[in-house]
Amino acid sequence: MSKFWSSTVRKTKPYVPGEQPNEADVIKLNTNENPYPPSPKAVEAMRSVIGDDLRKYPNPTVDSLRKVIADREEVKPENVFVGNGSDEVLAFAFQAFFETNEAIRFPEITYSFYPVYAKLYDIPYQTVPLKNDFTIDVDGMCNSIGGVIFPNPNAPTGVALKLNEIEKIIQCNSNQVVIVDEAYVAFGAESAVPLIKKYPNVLITRTLSKSHALAGIRLGYAIGSTSLIEGLERIKNSFNSYTINRVTLAGAEAALQDDEYYDEMISRVTDTREWTTHQLEDLGFDVLPSQANFLFVSPSKVTAQELYESLKREKIYVRYFENLEDYIRISIGTENEMKDFVEKVRHIIESIKI
Amino acid sequence: MSKFWSSTVRKTKPYVPGEQPNEADVIKLNTNENPYPPSPKAVEAMRSVIGDDLRKYPNPTVDSLRKVIADREEVKPENVFVGNGSDEVLAFAFQAFFETNEAIRFPEITYSFYPVYAKLYDIPYQTVPLKNDFTIDVDGMCNSIGGVIFPNPNAPTGVALKLNEIEKIIQCNSNQVVIVDEAYVAFGAESAVPLIKKYPNVLITRTLSKSHALAGIRLGYAIGSTSLIEGLERIKNSFNSYTINRVTLAGAEAALQDDEYYDEMISRVTDTREWTTHQLEDLGFDVLPSQANFLFVSPSKVTAQELYESLKREKIYVRYFENLEDYIRISIGTENEMKDFVEKVRHIIESIKI
Repeated sequence: MSKFWSSTVRKTKPYVPGEQPNEADVIKLNTNENPYPPSPKAVEAMRSVIGDDLRKYPNPTVDSLRKVIADREEVKPENVFVGNGSDEVLAFAFQAFFETNEAIRFPEITYSFYPVYAKLYDIPYQTVPLKNDFTIDVDGMCNSIGGVIFPNPNAPTGVALKLNEIEKIIQCNSNQVVIVDEAYVAFGAESAVPLIKKYPNVLITRTLSKSHALAGIRLGYAIGSTSLIEGLERIKNSFNSYTINRVTLAGAEAALQDDEYYDEMISRVTDTREWTTHQLEDLGFDVLPSQANFLFVSPSKVTAQELYESLKREKIYVRYFENLEDYIRISIGTENEMKDFVEKVRHIIESIKI
Repeated sequence: MSKFWSSTVRKTKPYVPGEQPNEADVIKLNTNENPYPPSPKAVEAMRSVIGDDLRKYPNPTVDSLRKVIADREEVKPENVFVGNGSDEVLAFAFQAFFETNEAIRFPEITYSFYPVYAKLYDIPYQTVPLKNDFTIDVDGMCNSIGGVIFPNPNAPTGVALKLNEIEKIIQCNSNQVVIVDEAYVAFGAESAVPLIKKYPNVLITRTLSKSHALAGIRLGYAIGSTSLIEGLERIKNSFNSYTINRVTLAGAEAALQDDEYYDEMISRVTDTREWTTHQLEDLGFDVLPSQANFLFVSPSKVTAQELYESLKREKIYVRYFENLEDYIRISIGTENEMKDFVEKVRHIIESIKI
């Protein structure tokens, strides 16, 4: 503690992201990155803007990218907000729509950045236990005092709600903002974007880090009613006029127009997810039904922590959460990476049996 | 006003950045960008990282860039914080070091984002009038309750304090944080970075947007005692784990190691500044002595607003602030741009005399 720190800093409990090992020959299944490269069109678009124009500020209102997103999502540009990764979009949303004296609600097992934002902005929160099958408890999310946030599919479980269940949560919190964090929606869940035309209180957030294989350029966005988008703009324009750099803008625009490439790539990821699920079930693991690019599994014969540590010694990184001790989260890699992974897991289990 | 907005959003008074005209043939002297291109080594470094690795997150602690900055500034990496433009660094600093019940102090004429941050984080403030010669009133900045922030050189005046004057402000606020915003320091003022070894309460902020001709990639940084840097890290890690994308990291590292290129370019800008100053003085303008890459001038024969509007019709953009009605701010362009600018100004003035 420093005497120069504000009361805000003293209260923070910073988020700890997954490890980013520097070694070259690791299999990295711990931060839900896409194992396939980004669209060649996005790569080309970024290369083409690297030059003298970087001396100039980017467009502060990112009009061109907002139009691309609006066309794609069948909304208007005024329904689109863009940020430096969806984490920044979420941070702005906590500040824009939640209050310091009104408890918000989110699932007990969920993206662990939500309580971090709440601490930062001094927003009280209540957590709602998942149901026995690890789905979000729709009734438990109703009638919040300060608002609601949840991912669909949920992280780190990968389990999705149906669209009518999401609509119920939006309806039963009609005087509060409901944020649906769709970071992983492209891998199989139903999007709630069509609901923004019916409900002014729902905000959908997205990222290019997972489905679009562009975690390295930092681009997230939100879709919602014009008044919610204006709220986000007011926060952003009180924080940093130019949050998105010129290279990211160019890459994001091109990526979001290359569905042919990404549809194929996402199919490969979901096929590999199904294959990996069956392999782990054959090894006696409990595997939750995932609509994301990761699996949340409880291993057999070893503890989650033992498996995490054994895999790390073999240079395979998965994510272990100390507060979720029976489970590990495994990002879906390439077919070959997952074959290696399953082989290593089999070997670890067999060596313990002896 | 929307019923879904938080009390924070309701209080914001967002910053309005300078116009970013889309036309190709304008002379843009309104946002203090560098008229020369970025270092070819920075351009090459950025091109080289555009590829498959963009699927992966960047290093959340940006160790390599922090080491480059530390070596350059003769401090340790633990004395360096990096952000998405110095505006983001400043936003984090307001949240990390200033309090909602303790008034901070900054000059009455200064970077107009400071009151915007104060509104965002609900921090009260007092403004200190400049002295008659437009220098910052050192005594007036003493004994603040909540902390102090000022640019050196000041913006939009371009007028700098001497290092011993800055030291006095740091000494006479020894229990508060003093932020010295050195966005423009490379164009002639003395840096306060050496003072961080003596005073734990001073934070220096910098940007690559002006001196390094990289406004388009968004990179700012701060230098200060380890406890101040840790305060900023705690805020950032409660907001967004990865604020700097991979391309910006590569470009910034290369740019900050190419002093040979930038020293030459900065000399050209300061030479052009001196030439422009003499030309405008010959036209009867009052030109403040600038240590920045812009001039703050009060025109003769026309009002500042008339000159701003007349120049805009000629496709020359300068910055006019409604609250500073006698003055306009002119960014320093290339030699040719400034010749065109001076010619146009002469023509406007002469046409009014008739």
